[in-house]
Amino acid sequence: MVEQSRTPVTVLGLGSMGSALAGAFLDAGHPTTVWNRTASKAEPLVAKGAVQAASVVEAVAASPLVITCLTTYENTVEALEPAAAELAGRALVPLNSGSPSGARRTAEWATGRGARYLDGAIKNVPSAVGAADTLLYYGGDRSVFDEYEAVLRVMGGDTVYLGADADLAALYEMAVGGTLLPALVGFFQGAAALQARGLEVASMVRFSVKWFEMINSVLPVFAAEIDSGRYDDAASSVNLFLAGAAHDEELGREANIDVAWHEPFRELLERAVAAGHGEHSISALTEVLKKPA
Amino acid sequence: MVEQSRTPVTVLGLGSMGSALAGAFLDAGHPTTVWNRTASKAEPLVAKGAVQAASVVEAVAASPLVITCLTTYENTVEALEPAAAELAGRALVPLNSGSPSGARRTAEWATGRGARYLDGAIKNVPSAVGAADTLLYYGGDRSVFDEYEAVLRVMGGDTVYLGADADLAALYEMAVGGTLLPALVGFFQGAAALQARGLEVASMVRFSVKWFEMINSVLPVFAAEIDSGRYDDAASSVNLFLAGAAHDEELGREANIDVAWHEPFRELLERAVAAGHGEHSISALTEVLKKPA
Repeated sequence: MVEQSRTPVTVLGLGSMGSALAGAFLDAGHPTTVWNRTASKAEPLVAKGAVQAASVVEAVAASPLVITCLTTYENTVEALEPAAAELAGRALVPLNSGSPSGARRTAEWATGRGARYLDGAIKNVPSAVGAADTLLYYGGDRSVFDEYEAVLRVMGGDTVYLGADADLAALYEMAVGGTLLPALVGFFQGAAALQARGLEVASMVRFSVKWFEMINSVLPVFAAEIDSGRYDDAASSVNLFLAGAAHDEELGREANIDVAWHEPFRELLERAVAAGHGEHSISALTEVLKKPA
Repeated sequence: MVEQSRTPVTVLGLGSMGSALAGAFLDAGHPTTVWNRTASKAEPLVAKGAVQAASVVEAVAASPLVITCLTTYENTVEALEPAAAELAGRALVPLNSGSPSGARRTAEWATGRGARYLDGAIKNVPSAVGAADTLLYYGGDRSVFDEYEAVLRVMGGDTVYLGADADLAALYEMAVGGTLLPALVGFFQGAAALQARGLEVASMVRFSVKWFEMINSVLPVFAAEIDSGRYDDAASSVNLFLAGAAHDEELGREANIDVAWHEPFRELLERAVAAGHGEHSISALTEVLKKPA
């Protein structure tokens, strides 16, 4: 049988993402053991053929590859603690969000118990799990990545090894993911402004999508400016953005929406001007962010 | 000659965007008249065949279609004032950024002088001018759009008429464009965090691009939630974002970067929780933004 040639996988934590991951392993024919603190979350997966472990010890013991998808690194260590004696020699791959220091602490804890540690991050939504272009990246034990790369690829086809440091996935996760909330709040503000005029928010989606595509088209230019430290060939200057910021207050007044969250951005722009970056590229804000006020 | 059948166009304001627009008209064979306060900016366009007007009066008088690309609405009216008597019957299409109220004031001023007013916004960078998928949208006099649609399309193939209100382009411009600075600051923060670790910012660009594509994939869902006012089927809850916000401070400490700009976002999330949106979709922040603190 095909299934017997597939690596057994254990998934701990069955929120929407963990459930999607376990489902992908089941679809790919991997013997899949699951565990969740609230056991009922496992039911749909058991119906698809997963084995529900009665304890974390049993769950960890079931597979050479243990993937955790809990909320934080602290939750992860806490959940694994009872199974510490079972970790030796197994590959542990946490996929939660968290800080680089949390990743380092968890790596230290896990390797101290003999686990082989590879830390990962999935950069997409649960419904994208398993797709060919879904991105996951990893940092830590290279031998784990090499041995299980094909298994990891079941979760998303764009699977990347960043390097040997156990905190690299968390570092890139925060570096890359830090655009999400501010970008969304910008979108929600626009939504509120349209609603104040009786317009459907759906009418702006196509335009917003193109706008983010435009932003994507300029990121390589900004990265090159920041990497070289040369900001003087500015397509969009700090002064231009500062002039634009003046319109925000008018928008707030006209649409009666909260634009208080813009204030720190204006302050950043003003600090950049004060530091001599007025006619420099907006990417020079990176230098200001490096110098906490 | 082909050129004689093309609509003559005047472009006022020859910054990087105005120059790109005038260049596109020249490439498309339109007799193109240009004017800029600093006259030397016109030289590259004159070399390509543009006629440089000696005054705004001469520039406006040269074409039935006058496109302005000045910094603000105030600059636009100020620049056009000497040519007010020439505006009657001409189509005036301002493409600057600005607030909806600025658009309304400018429309009132221009129509009061007999101009036909169509207000526009170009949602891309100068290098994208003329491309088939470059987006420009317009609000105002429908007859101007219908008469000159093919000419306007020279500036970008994705040319859209939003409606008869003269401030619609400015409204959508602010609604859509409000994601730019916050998204970029998020990216620059990530850049600073990578540099603090000696990593190249270029190494994150591919991941950031995919991240914005992921954001784009969820915008229709958020728009539907906001339009319906139903936030209870949450893929990403306010509480989840609030938990994530706790990591930001660790990132700031670890990388020694300024995360003060996150504070209003945390406050927004907390206000949303206080309003009962904790387990609702993050798009419920729209409701909080509608109620200034």
